[in-house]
Amino acid sequence: MEINWDAFLAPYAQAVEELKVKLRGIRKQYRQGNTHVPIEFVTGRVKPADSILAKADLRHIALENLESEMQDIAGLRIMCQFVEDIQDVVKMLKKRKDFTIIDEKDYVMHKKESGYRSYHVVIEYPVQLINGEKKILAEIQIRTLAMNFWATIEHSLNYKYQDELPQEISERLERAAEAAFQLDEEMSQIREEIQEAQHLFSYSKGRKKKESGQDRLS
Amino acid sequence: MEINWDAFLAPYAQAVEELKVKLRGIRKQYRQGNTHVPIEFVTGRVKPADSILAKADLRHIALENLESEMQDIAGLRIMCQFVEDIQDVVKMLKKRKDFTIIDEKDYVMHKKESGYRSYHVVIEYPVQLINGEKKILAEIQIRTLAMNFWATIEHSLNYKYQDELPQEISERLERAAEAAFQLDEEMSQIREEIQEAQHLFSYSKGRKKKESGQDRLS
Amino acid sequence: MEINWDAFLAPYAQAVEELKVKLRGIRKQYRQGNTHVPIEFVTGRVKPADSILAKADLRHIALENLESEMQDIAGLRIMCQFVEDIQDVVKMLKKRKDFTIIDEKDYVMHKKESGYRSYHVVIEYPVQLINGEKKILAEIQIRTLAMNFWATIEHSLNYKYQDELPQEISERLERAAEAAFQLDEEMSQIREEIQEAQHLFSYSKGRKKKESGQDRLS
Amino acid sequence: MEINWDAFLAPYAQAVEELKVKLRGIRKQYRQGNTHVPIEFVTGRVKPADSILAKADLRHIALENLESEMQDIAGLRIMCQFVEDIQDVVKMLKKRKDFTIIDEKDYVMHKKESGYRSYHVVIEYPVQLINGEKKILAEIQIRTLAMNFWATIEHSLNYKYQDELPQEISERLERAAEAAFQLDEEMSQIREEIQEAQHLFSYSKGRKKKESGQDRLS
Repeated sequence: MEINWDAFLAPYAQAVEELKVKLRGIRKQYRQGNTHVPIEFVTGRVKPADSILAKADLRHIALENLESEMQDIAGLRIMCQFVEDIQDVVKMLKKRKDFTIIDEKDYVMHKKESGYRSYHVVIEYPVQLINGEKKILAEIQIRTLAMNFWATIEHSLNYKYQDELPQEISERLERAAEAAFQLDEEMSQIREEIQEAQHLFSYSKGRKKKESGQDRLS
Repeated sequence: MEINWDAFLAPYAQAVEELKVKLRGIRKQYRQGNTHVPIEFVTGRVKPADSILAKADLRHIALENLESEMQDIAGLRIMCQFVEDIQDVVKMLKKRKDFTIIDEKDYVMHKKESGYRSYHVVIEYPVQLINGEKKILAEIQIRTLAMNFWATIEHSLNYKYQDELPQEISERLERAAEAAFQLDEEMSQIREEIQEAQHLFSYSKGRKKKESGQDRLS
Repeated sequence: MEINWDAFLAPYAQAVEELKVKLRGIRKQYRQGNTHVPIEFVTGRVKPADSILAKADLRHIALENLESEMQDIAGLRIMCQFVEDIQDVVKMLKKRKDFTIIDEKDYVMHKKESGYRSYHVVIEYPVQLINGEKKILAEIQIRTLAMNFWATIEHSLNYKYQDELPQEISERLERAAEAAFQLDEEMSQIREEIQEAQHLFSYSKGRKKKESGQDRLS
Repeated sequence: MEINWDAFLAPYAQAVEELKVKLRGIRKQYRQGNTHVPIEFVTGRVKPADSILAKADLRHIALENLESEMQDIAGLRIMCQFVEDIQDVVKMLKKRKDFTIIDEKDYVMHKKESGYRSYHVVIEYPVQLINGEKKILAEIQIRTLAMNFWATIEHSLNYKYQDELPQEISERLERAAEAAFQLDEEMSQIREEIQEAQHLFSYSKGRKKKESGQDRLS
């Protein structure tokens, strides 16, 4: 089966563009609401043809079933500051009426053997084409910065070693996963204290913006 | 002294836009060169008027000296995967002829008391205005993802507590800085092993791209 | 009635961002389809607060009815090469399922007294907010480059003369409208001949891409 | 001679991205200055490999001389409202210190036989690469919307007829060039009257923003 990749990937590319604008828009809304912003940044990509073919081979997906069986041809990623933000983001995604959630995988509560942690949501998203509507699958990964950090490293390593990690490297990667997990744990505790403190504050005094050395770049 | 902020900030905003395109372009070059890409992502911002005023107050900078004495009105941030990448990025910035480096601060080797780590480069950048060239100062911060992660948290905390962190929070923040540092250390060691492995590999077999479960979103 | 403009305009801004990505995506689809591309470019804007207030005043719209009675707070504009493209674009918009068309005004067939020509489509577009879906109104203007050219000039003149155009200027503007109309007429005739020629060609010989001196910048 | 197109075109693509940000920045400056904005919009493109090869063939440019002899591999286009704006833009480009103008062609005063009108400026622009600075050539075309309109049509026609326009089409194209020219003439006269009027106005009364039916989309 010969695939015209430009034509095949076009609706996925359009979906990714639309979803990036939509998910980034959520961040702006939280900011304006002056509440905690659970989204740090949003990225998106269309899986390249060679990666699609390699994965289809690995998972025994026939090329004529790509659209229905490969869920991450369109991929979005939402980065959060705190582990707790992940559930807030998932809840908010479930409220949306512009797509349907058809699958969820909680690799935060149930991390993969490799140490990989992330929350995956698979959606069915309607793209309006010249000739009518087409529903495509897309995967949204929600994770903390520490989870993202680790996953980036793991990806590089697997890429270089072609999935056959030497014992030594493999052990280090586990220790790194542990360090990333600890970072998230520390942050969660800090978060709780911030919230308690905020509660106390709100009775005792007003708040004003103040220069704190590091401001936010976006 | 009354400042027309729109007019005052316009050349800084233009500089930030140009530098974002320039620094992001570097990333593309590394990618095409098929070598390790030392830049993960680049962000930029112009310091808002109220933050400028607060900082000028704190540092006793007279408003008529803002242009020459406040170095981070235009701010760029380059995020790296490995600590070692930071020096590569700095070297590469020094080769450029479109700006002049006028100051450097190495908070990676010499972290701040707070635990803050980053490499700061202050540049003089010429912006072409309708009425001629204007040289402005801009600060480029270069840091790993782990350093950035910690700095984001510290910024939130300082913002909320207005620089008077309770002892409890302050200690947690130190532990978080330690965890972030450990993460960078682990990564550095993994990096070395990757490079050794690559060296060995290059004698024994060719390399081909392979699906590894997590691909890169950008 | 006091309006919080940032909050009021936010869903409109989000809608404009989403619709720009969606309408520009259409252009890509036509291009890939290798057929005539009826869309030259797409622009969008949110009406500024002062323009909203001025128009509400002029049209006697109570501020509490802005959402339901002012249709162009969110505005999109689609520029076409040929007058005939306008109807193709309108037909294609009507096929979409991500918004509902609730009004149409055909100032192409029935130009305004001022000479203004354009096709206006008013849509109801659902924006997904943190707290649920909100349907907003948006106006899509579809026009040729010549119509757009004239409208830009008319806008400048009305802005400068505050809607009280001197007789002299007013007459010139009419002559300019006439010239713009002629340009569109000439183009329509050229278009027909192109299509006939294409028909003839397709029997006699193949087509290949060729350098023609001016290529397309986008 | 085999060309690695990705590597060859990369510095041109980078230059186009930088110049788009720079030239669009000019527009913002004029707007903030509250003076007439001589730039309507700016587009840019890198010439595709097949167009480069076709043009090299047509103009007898050896592939090893592409960098020095083909001036429009990187192309920018600045659209103006009035013919008079073109000279203002050219003067402003000449003041810039971030590139050197090495050639100018005035097809506004001296239109091409085909009817083509535009002002071309060829610049030498320094791009900072990982391995050092590289100077590349880029062409900036400055034209009114009417000139652009006509050129777009001519491009389509030449593309379809492969530069052998039938007499009938060729004559229509000339009439269209004439209509476009008339449109620019009318606009110039309106422009003069606007300026006179502004002069008179400034003695007699203040100016205030007013809703004029069509606002600006950008």
